[in-house]
Amino acid sequence: MDSKLSVYNSLTRNKEEFKAMNPPFAGMYVCGPTVYGDPHLGHARSAITFDIVFRYLSFIGYKVRYVRNITDVGHLENDADEGADKIAKKARIEQLEPMEVVQMYTNSYHEAMDRLNVRRPSIEPRASGHIQEQVEMIQRIIDAGLAYVSNGSVYFDVLKYNEHEHYGELSGRILDDLIAHAGEERRTLEGKEEKKNSFDFALWKKAAPEHIMRWNSPWSEGFPGWHIECSAMSAKYLGETFDIHGGGMDLLFPHHECEIAQSRSSNGVAPAKYWMHNNMITINGQKMGKSLGNAVNLAQFFDGDHPVLARAYNPMTIRFFILQAHYRSTLDFSNEALEAADKGLRKMINGLRTAKALVYTEDSSIAKDEALDKEILADCERVYEGMNNDFNTAIAIAELYNLLKRINSIKAGIIPMAGISRESFDKLISTFVAVNEEVLGICEEKMTERDDPNRMIESWMETYRAARAEKKFDMVDLIRGNFKQMGIVIKDSKTGSEWAYEE
Amino acid sequence: MDSKLSVYNSLTRNKEEFKAMNPPFAGMYVCGPTVYGDPHLGHARSAITFDIVFRYLSFIGYKVRYVRNITDVGHLENDADEGADKIAKKARIEQLEPMEVVQMYTNSYHEAMDRLNVRRPSIEPRASGHIQEQVEMIQRIIDAGLAYVSNGSVYFDVLKYNEHEHYGELSGRILDDLIAHAGEERRTLEGKEEKKNSFDFALWKKAAPEHIMRWNSPWSEGFPGWHIECSAMSAKYLGETFDIHGGGMDLLFPHHECEIAQSRSSNGVAPAKYWMHNNMITINGQKMGKSLGNAVNLAQFFDGDHPVLARAYNPMTIRFFILQAHYRSTLDFSNEALEAADKGLRKMINGLRTAKALVYTEDSSIAKDEALDKEILADCERVYEGMNNDFNTAIAIAELYNLLKRINSIKAGIIPMAGISRESFDKLISTFVAVNEEVLGICEEKMTERDDPNRMIESWMETYRAARAEKKFDMVDLIRGNFKQMGIVIKDSKTGSEWAYEE
Repeated sequence: MDSKLSVYNSLTRNKEEFKAMNPPFAGMYVCGPTVYGDPHLGHARSAITFDIVFRYLSFIGYKVRYVRNITDVGHLENDADEGADKIAKKARIEQLEPMEVVQMYTNSYHEAMDRLNVRRPSIEPRASGHIQEQVEMIQRIIDAGLAYVSNGSVYFDVLKYNEHEHYGELSGRILDDLIAHAGEERRTLEGKEEKKNSFDFALWKKAAPEHIMRWNSPWSEGFPGWHIECSAMSAKYLGETFDIHGGGMDLLFPHHECEIAQSRSSNGVAPAKYWMHNNMITINGQKMGKSLGNAVNLAQFFDGDHPVLARAYNPMTIRFFILQAHYRSTLDFSNEALEAADKGLRKMINGLRTAKALVYTEDSSIAKDEALDKEILADCERVYEGMNNDFNTAIAIAELYNLLKRINSIKAGIIPMAGISRESFDKLISTFVAVNEEVLGICEEKMTERDDPNRMIESWMETYRAARAEKKFDMVDLIRGNFKQMGIVIKDSKTGSEWAYEE
Repeated sequence: MDSKLSVYNSLTRNKEEFKAMNPPFAGMYVCGPTVYGDPHLGHARSAITFDIVFRYLSFIGYKVRYVRNITDVGHLENDADEGADKIAKKARIEQLEPMEVVQMYTNSYHEAMDRLNVRRPSIEPRASGHIQEQVEMIQRIIDAGLAYVSNGSVYFDVLKYNEHEHYGELSGRILDDLIAHAGEERRTLEGKEEKKNSFDFALWKKAAPEHIMRWNSPWSEGFPGWHIECSAMSAKYLGETFDIHGGGMDLLFPHHECEIAQSRSSNGVAPAKYWMHNNMITINGQKMGKSLGNAVNLAQFFDGDHPVLARAYNPMTIRFFILQAHYRSTLDFSNEALEAADKGLRKMINGLRTAKALVYTEDSSIAKDEALDKEILADCERVYEGMNNDFNTAIAIAELYNLLKRINSIKAGIIPMAGISRESFDKLISTFVAVNEEVLGICEEKMTERDDPNRMIESWMETYRAARAEKKFDMVDLIRGNFKQMGIVIKDSKTGSEWAYEE
């Protein structure tokens, strides 16, 4: 391809040419789920967004190490430094050990992502599995004079950090505004607060007596703050500076801002070169939320098991729908939009079946059309231009439909196959198939998962029973014969006909 | 059921009545895989063995916390204290970060176990995620005077431990024999050995400069010995003493013997009440091994992709074959044996379909046969007696076939349904279905995974094309109609007939 990959960098608020720090290697860290509930559309969008980045970088030749964490400790309610740990709270409600909650929802996350054909990351580290690395990083921040111990907890000193660095470089938050806001808070919190300033954030929290998840540390028996895990684990598996850090837009502040501050303070460098953030999802124009009754989880989408859903949607439809928008746009789910995506997906998959079945054949009686060759190559190029334009899958899909038109015209003989060169033909087919399957992760098998084989067998059994009643014995024999090939026998009896596995 | 559950305890070499320490809770720890290669039959047998224990204990009313670890560090070649770490070595060969190797093979392990319908454990901790817990346990053993530091590594002092405890209590190894053997070894290793005695084992190893996986500790930058992870993680998630510790028989010595020594030394108590060990697997009468060319992995079984396999075997056939033997017997895989298991499985699944379709109907003209009622209840009881007899699935399956005979007789009218009481009927059906599905994990859906829906569609398309050629239009219409119901359209053209998804 001719065009170069550009990435919108949240840090510079600009689209920039992607230049890997250490080609052909590329390192990417993405904030994964806090595993205390069933995976929902928000999880799907983030995972699919960075699955595309992972797939496309691999496709264009990078050796990508993709690290996506599991947050299994330290993420407190309301993303704050006070309140219950989200997982411990769920464990209490469900009367389980916190790690049982972690296991259960990690499993359901993986299951849903597998069905959505999201590739597993190269490494999937857990926060609770990296306490030592976090403790050592916190110690380095304390040693640098940028964190303080208060009543067994450790807090990051934002004002101190801001003397030499810029707190707000990613989010654009103005510290003066935070200070003004903090002033108001201080009046209400007087005396209750361990922190010097309300915008300081926890690196380590001393555990209350009832807190189950706790580890020894130099400061107290406690647990790490939410932000430190990503700094410690990204540095461990990708080095102190790596190429891409991704996550949902809701994590930009404070989580990612704090990550940058932590890494600069302990390692002296910013963690990532490019920061990428996927936008949010709405359902029927509303924000998702339990109180609004529209918090549909992915399993419910797959089963159609929620009042807002008109029917079940197969995982590929969800994936395709998400890809039909650019990751930085907001995306609104509705039954109508999903129906349209489903229709579009089936068209694409029919196209894949057509494209794979076409065989190039020469015919010397037909003149070559060089202008058409050029058009086809240009059409293919535009697919990659879409992907290179900040991974714009919306454009890429639109361009793939253009390729599909050409493919269908060739199949129908409207474009004589021998009129185009073998090179153009190969490029057309390979671009269409590879970008669909390898880059976008469109997969027919995942779409047809819903097709329970027994349902298909039952449908033929009805036909069999009708044929038998009408004494259409050639049809009866035919169905029996077809079933036999599949290891299925039909048993006729007084009470009717039934099928069974051949024994 | 009337009989009581008995368990063969490797520690006492006796079958004992199972008495949970803290009913209705039961805790079980099982040694999981070292994730440096594709899962094979040995993994399947161990996972299925303890899946049955997990399922059956749950079935009879226990709330089971089942912990199965992932060994991702510290397991050295030849299970010894010297040599390369298995995972680091694989990482070097495949040029990956060790944790990428861990992720890849953890994923393939999970995928294979899911296909075998092995339930995920409640908690699946990783060795590398519990370094701190291991370091703290090692420190307690040192503090107790039962381990020594040597050149930055820490070794367990077996002779010292044996002064007050019995090293060999599980395996029956006689320390005097080990000492005699060690004497010979000492002559050859003179001066090279950090250990006081060759049968001492590593708790912590100082990392050589080229070793990638390393953590800080009070003794050196290094990594934990292989045995300590299970002691630390079982205590963390199940308490210092729990009900069942399981694993393959090859782990009995030294791994489990060392675990007991570690737990007694640091916690003052033996870790588990019951020790269970599954026996090994052979292929065509030979031990599995790479050098013998018979190391078939599970994916190869599922795909039929290995010279020793006559064909692909679906995961349920592998599962059923393993269950047809008691877990403490050796088990020999062969194509003939798998064919027989496959046949038996299909018979059982046909039985499940039959059982679920039967509806009890009263008929006052038929006399009740109380003797038969009693026989049926006794038949059902014998299924549970099999399970209660140290989880003897071989007996349970044989008894389930007896129930199946009754069910088939009822279906065929040989036993008049109204002649038995509703209670007996319900007991018969529910025992047959529940023990098959819930306890043994027999699952029709997992069996039919191999039935690619497209293969079935193609088979009908051939019929369609033939019918069309022969102008049998009623059949043509019928196939079209059936397909339409499934969202599939048939397109006829000059070049022939093809199917596509409805757009």
